[in-house]
Amino acid sequence: MDVDVMEHIFLLVLVTLLSVLQNAFFALKVEKECKTSNTKSAAFERLSCAKGNCMDTYATFLAVMWCAGIGLSQVPAAFAGVVYLWVRHQYFIGYMGQTSQSTPGFLFGKRVLLFLFLMCFVGIMNFLLAQYCGSDYKEYIQTITKAASPLLLLP
Amino acid sequence: MDVDVMEHIFLLVLVTLLSVLQNAFFALKVEKECKTSNTKSAAFERLSCAKGNCMDTYATFLAVMWCAGIGLSQVPAAFAGVVYLWVRHQYFIGYMGQTSQSTPGFLFGKRVLLFLFLMCFVGIMNFLLAQYCGSDYKEYIQTITKAASPLLLLP
Amino acid sequence: MDVDVMEHIFLLVLVTLLSVLQNAFFALKVEKECKTSNTKSAAFERLSCAKGNCMDTYATFLAVMWCAGIGLSQVPAAFAGVVYLWVRHQYFIGYMGQTSQSTPGFLFGKRVLLFLFLMCFVGIMNFLLAQYCGSDYKEYIQTITKAASPLLLLP
Repeated sequence: MDVDVMEHIFLLVLVTLLSVLQNAFFALKVEKECKTSNTKSAAFERLSCAKGNCMDTYATFLAVMWCAGIGLSQVPAAFAGVVYLWVRHQYFIGYMGQTSQSTPGFLFGKRVLLFLFLMCFVGIMNFLLAQYCGSDYKEYIQTITKAASPLLLLP
Repeated sequence: MDVDVMEHIFLLVLVTLLSVLQNAFFALKVEKECKTSNTKSAAFERLSCAKGNCMDTYATFLAVMWCAGIGLSQVPAAFAGVVYLWVRHQYFIGYMGQTSQSTPGFLFGKRVLLFLFLMCFVGIMNFLLAQYCGSDYKEYIQTITKAASPLLLLP
Repeated sequence: MDVDVMEHIFLLVLVTLLSVLQNAFFALKVEKECKTSNTKSAAFERLSCAKGNCMDTYATFLAVMWCAGIGLSQVPAAFAGVVYLWVRHQYFIGYMGQTSQSTPGFLFGKRVLLFLFLMCFVGIMNFLLAQYCGSDYKEYIQTITKAASPLLLLP
């Protein structure tokens, strides 16, 4: 691939690398817990369950982030990806706590995934409009998306 | 990315979005079951198992669909993707039934995945032929693939 | 997509197809074990666990391999992908053994994934250098990467 392509995806690749580092961190934590404690212990069960929940949505997250980044705009998609990784970190840390009452729910990062999903959807709609109606609002949409992405940081 | 790239992948992005919606539906069903019933109940176990089976093959499905769509032809790949999502929906619904006898097997959507796999394979072979022998059958293959894809709808 | 794109990714598509074949092999093994033995048997538990571990890292592997192949160089990335599939095969075979003492650990293929991760990272760094400092070392890096990839074959 030449430089032109790389220019449009290098932030997405960076976030993907970050997420891989995080996956490795999760796997090492589970492996360490597996070695120090009994495999039937509650702590191992909880960590393993948290890792499972994270991994279940990992493919979904990657697919949505890349589609949003390629179809609409790279910077907000990568930003949302970083926010998602942060939320996932908090989620996993929550599971590492001692009391099982503090475990968060089954799902997490719903807002970030919804944002990325809407980005994809708007990108597709805009492409179809530009293709069949000749009206291209891509620049306006990209500006709105960039302005809206800091809202993800609200607690 | 410019419009040229988008033109070749927008149907794949649409099917990916659909599959993400379905994943969210599965996750919400499991979460609801988790809250209403005991986590050790048979219904929760079954739903969780069905979601696990679906998620296990999700990355495989995405990879094959995108490779088939990019390497050979977009429309049949996206069509097969929609058929796969439909089969997966039926599979999950089957697990939500009351009696455990009605649960379907471990695997599902084998035919659709095989079709996508063959599309990838033929696309690669054709590329190699075109590259090293100078004979390009891509148009014939695309016509055959389009004609063959409705066969996926056979029960 | 035209031939230019295909030229840069066809080896990655081939390795992806190989990995899909391997996934199908794993799934069929688990299904066969599920039918012949009781679902609560130790052999089924072990196979199912091995498949789960393989699937957990599958999305990570695909993401890293494609990023490395697109961002830096196709041939070493595809080669590392094949080595990873071989390691994964050995891992799964190890779990199929009779005695539970022979089961390998929780993680596998760490070296291959690290190699792919470094390839991605170096590719990104080189792109940023070329973009903002005007110095492009891509050819040197690709030569070094190709020379280093056989080291993955060391036991």
